[in-house]
Amino acid sequence: MVSILELVSMENPVHFFKQDRYGALNGIMLVETSPGRATVRMTIREDHLNSHGTVHGGAIFTLADTAFALASNSHGIPAAAINAHISFMKAVRTGTLVAEAEEYALNPKLATYTVRVNDERGEKIAIFQGMVYRKSPRKE
Amino acid sequence: MVSILELVSMENPVHFFKQDRYGALNGIMLVETSPGRATVRMTIREDHLNSHGTVHGGAIFTLADTAFALASNSHGIPAAAINAHISFMKAVRTGTLVAEAEEYALNPKLATYTVRVNDERGEKIAIFQGMVYRKSPRKE
Amino acid sequence: MVSILELVSMENPVHFFKQDRYGALNGIMLVETSPGRATVRMTIREDHLNSHGTVHGGAIFTLADTAFALASNSHGIPAAAINAHISFMKAVRTGTLVAEAEEYALNPKLATYTVRVNDERGEKIAIFQGMVYRKSPRKE
Amino acid sequence: MVSILELVSMENPVHFFKQDRYGALNGIMLVETSPGRATVRMTIREDHLNSHGTVHGGAIFTLADTAFALASNSHGIPAAAINAHISFMKAVRTGTLVAEAEEYALNPKLATYTVRVNDERGEKIAIFQGMVYRKSPRKE
Repeated sequence: MVSILELVSMENPVHFFKQDRYGALNGIMLVETSPGRATVRMTIREDHLNSHGTVHGGAIFTLADTAFALASNSHGIPAAAINAHISFMKAVRTGTLVAEAEEYALNPKLATYTVRVNDERGEKIAIFQGMVYRKSPRKE
Repeated sequence: MVSILELVSMENPVHFFKQDRYGALNGIMLVETSPGRATVRMTIREDHLNSHGTVHGGAIFTLADTAFALASNSHGIPAAAINAHISFMKAVRTGTLVAEAEEYALNPKLATYTVRVNDERGEKIAIFQGMVYRKSPRKE
Repeated sequence: MVSILELVSMENPVHFFKQDRYGALNGIMLVETSPGRATVRMTIREDHLNSHGTVHGGAIFTLADTAFALASNSHGIPAAAINAHISFMKAVRTGTLVAEAEEYALNPKLATYTVRVNDERGEKIAIFQGMVYRKSPRKE
Repeated sequence: MVSILELVSMENPVHFFKQDRYGALNGIMLVETSPGRATVRMTIREDHLNSHGTVHGGAIFTLADTAFALASNSHGIPAAAINAHISFMKAVRTGTLVAEAEEYALNPKLATYTVRVNDERGEKIAIFQGMVYRKSPRKE
């Protein structure tokens, strides 16, 4: 939270997303974004797998968190994740995962998002709920 | 959860950790492990950063989740993460992060872990709480 | 989890709900229930308030948790809550709160639910996500 | 969050606690409090039980949340819970429960607490992690 003053305002979501080097490392692609929403996808690679040979919880969280960042920064006010909760439904080994973030509630300083992660057939892989702190201008 | 029957039993933590390709992609190193505990670390690289230029929440979660997987699989009974909660204290841009997982409670089928993520000076970066489902033998 | 063997099977939701003495202490009313779903409501009383004069987080959680218990036990298989996450959107002082639980995913041993808590005008008060362990018969 | 401007500053923890009518309804007693910490207890009554005959998750959450409120308001700056996560270890039917809240991290606007709920013999019943938004004066 210390660096909230240095957060970047999203002016263009495609440009904002291109700055996300960790998203690139993971092979995450932007599908679409609109105010309060974002969809991203990731084709599973060998280097997304954990010791059990299934996609690492960190990779699934990363996909969800990337959709969450795009949705929560979409209003042009910088937003920093303060916490997140993820429940895993099903392990997966191959294919493409899609994460869709949706804004649940928006206050001047705090906002809440739900992200659903499914596989390409629509099977539920995980559900994520996250909250951000927003660097709104002083006045409100 | 579908693939719980296919989970791998940890016989040797070093070997188990070496099978974690996503841990390798992230540059995570095993520091130490003992029954119910694990410590891992990760030196921050440019490709761990998000659009704000700070370490991506997914990379911090991945570090914590890796310690959690080592600790929860340390009893030789395969364990699958079913959910996790993470709170972020402070954004970070450079240096090394350390995650220490500690078992909070162990039941035959479920176990709970706390993971603390600090920077190299011991400043708190995140706290994580996770639960696993354990593939214990039938009898209990 | 120790007492999972002693959990009660829900045969009739109205009867099951009547056994919930804490629900009664809180003045919670059953609105409706069907497999995987439940709606309950609670009219705010003076003794639901906390030191700030707003409804206690524990009372809001209790309302959500009661809907969660009804929805998760609705399949006739006893279900015990193993964890829950709640985000609070807005403080409230008077009126009636409604909690609607919806099943998100159901596996033989684990199931996940989302509960939305709104006030009588539909304003969002809280969102809750919970997981249960199910005492399914041995065979699966 | 709407009513954050109306939050009460804790000047005296005993007085603050006495204003908590829902704590009183639940029979919660203040054991001790100091800056960033609080311990409360609750003797289990028949009307704390759920449909399974064990203490309702809402009653356990309420006990933890009460300790959390005392700890997070202990610095004299009003604090409102924004979210909480609870994991349940063990069901319980009788005896006394104790909740101890401990501050994990404190920032001007946000703070994080861990609350452990044990029975009278020290057996783990639940672990709770919560975050508050603090109504700090403008300057920071």
